[in-house]
Amino acid sequence: MTEFSAENLQKDAFLGGKLHLWQPVKGYRAGVDPVLLAASVPAKPGQTVLDLGCGAGAAALCLGVRVAQLQLYGVEREPAYAALARRNGLEAAQDFTVTQADLAQMPAPLRAMSFDHVISNPPYYDRAHGTAAPDRVREAALGEDLPLAEWIGIGARRVKPRGYLHLILKADRLADALSAMNSCLGSLEVLPLAPRVDRAAELVLMRGRKEGRAPLKLHAPLILHRGADHPGDKDHYTKVVSDVLRCGAPITY
Amino acid sequence: MTEFSAENLQKDAFLGGKLHLWQPVKGYRAGVDPVLLAASVPAKPGQTVLDLGCGAGAAALCLGVRVAQLQLYGVEREPAYAALARRNGLEAAQDFTVTQADLAQMPAPLRAMSFDHVISNPPYYDRAHGTAAPDRVREAALGEDLPLAEWIGIGARRVKPRGYLHLILKADRLADALSAMNSCLGSLEVLPLAPRVDRAAELVLMRGRKEGRAPLKLHAPLILHRGADHPGDKDHYTKVVSDVLRCGAPITY
Repeated sequence: MTEFSAENLQKDAFLGGKLHLWQPVKGYRAGVDPVLLAASVPAKPGQTVLDLGCGAGAAALCLGVRVAQLQLYGVEREPAYAALARRNGLEAAQDFTVTQADLAQMPAPLRAMSFDHVISNPPYYDRAHGTAAPDRVREAALGEDLPLAEWIGIGARRVKPRGYLHLILKADRLADALSAMNSCLGSLEVLPLAPRVDRAAELVLMRGRKEGRAPLKLHAPLILHRGADHPGDKDHYTKVVSDVLRCGAPITY
Repeated sequence: MTEFSAENLQKDAFLGGKLHLWQPVKGYRAGVDPVLLAASVPAKPGQTVLDLGCGAGAAALCLGVRVAQLQLYGVEREPAYAALARRNGLEAAQDFTVTQADLAQMPAPLRAMSFDHVISNPPYYDRAHGTAAPDRVREAALGEDLPLAEWIGIGARRVKPRGYLHLILKADRLADALSAMNSCLGSLEVLPLAPRVDRAAELVLMRGRKEGRAPLKLHAPLILHRGADHPGDKDHYTKVVSDVLRCGAPITY
């Protein structure tokens, strides 16, 4: 599939309407993960950012809404998503260059570049506990054609000296991800994202710095939902997270 | 040094007086770390436990106070500490067999054994940020004659099938430790220990299970001290931690 049919597309609002993205009605759809990832990147105006496996562009374009004058790049293997990401960049009037390519075979022009920030919401889950995804593209996105350690290695190689790799991942991949980051980056930081107070983390934000020498930092968790139990209203976010999702506020850690 | 002089020894109370241990006045002295480690081990009566680098025996003997009829073993490289650990085991009337040996050259009888639980408070810190320790033994204990990954590998090999390796470590060693555990154990769990609410973890309790297949779990942090700031009174522990240190309560995670 090289393009989504018009009837399988809808335009969704992100960041309280500061950004609208075309996404397929069926198939992989950006949730809060890329929005949280983008919020966590302390990019400065004028810097370069590469989103590995950018999908329809949610993480890169959310970051572009918050930080002016970024030069945004994306790589996406699935042609239909790459096309959507380009369209979303154009309609958002952002400087977003999307390359359709497999990460393991990144084209030479991209391999010749390095970036202030490489960001990724990699399509990994814990294999032992996953269930088959209903959609072919989603299944590919959830599979592990490329081991997570290689994905991280490819990302780290595109980071400038003193630049950062930022990831959001399911918490159960922490060991694999830290192990891979530890071999090529320093100043590692982990921000656990817990659904509620006193609950285990379901996601982690992680970053590492090329040539970084600071000791690893395991931060206090960011709590996503208010209250100790699960009310009917799923959209019961804590103030910090609501500010991120509804107003485009940054996450600082 | 094969034995501490009498005037360099004092008997300290642990677990609110349920345990007393001889320790050197000068040199490596057990703090709260081995007590927290012991509290986190869900050993059952009759099981076998090996403490790697047992020092004067604090972790093993604290565990023996909480759980009856354990068969406790310790390995300690420094002869003076090994002698002290034996004496402490005898005076506590616990079944504690201490072998003086370098972990890298563990005697054959120990290498022929395997244990329900291997526990360790390994003598590692972040080299980049450590300062020279004043005492020779302490310096050796803080050095890295044996890389942490090897220490963990040696421990994991002494774990029975379905048994556990339990560690307490400085949080900045999380990547090294998870990476090593990930290659030989499963069902990894991390319990961050934070000095206060909303602060980064300074220590982590970790465990892994031989042949375990559960996904990694990153738990909500255990908070050590009450309040958001640092009062003059350092001994201002949260209820959970106070129950551990003063009453020998377990930590469940």
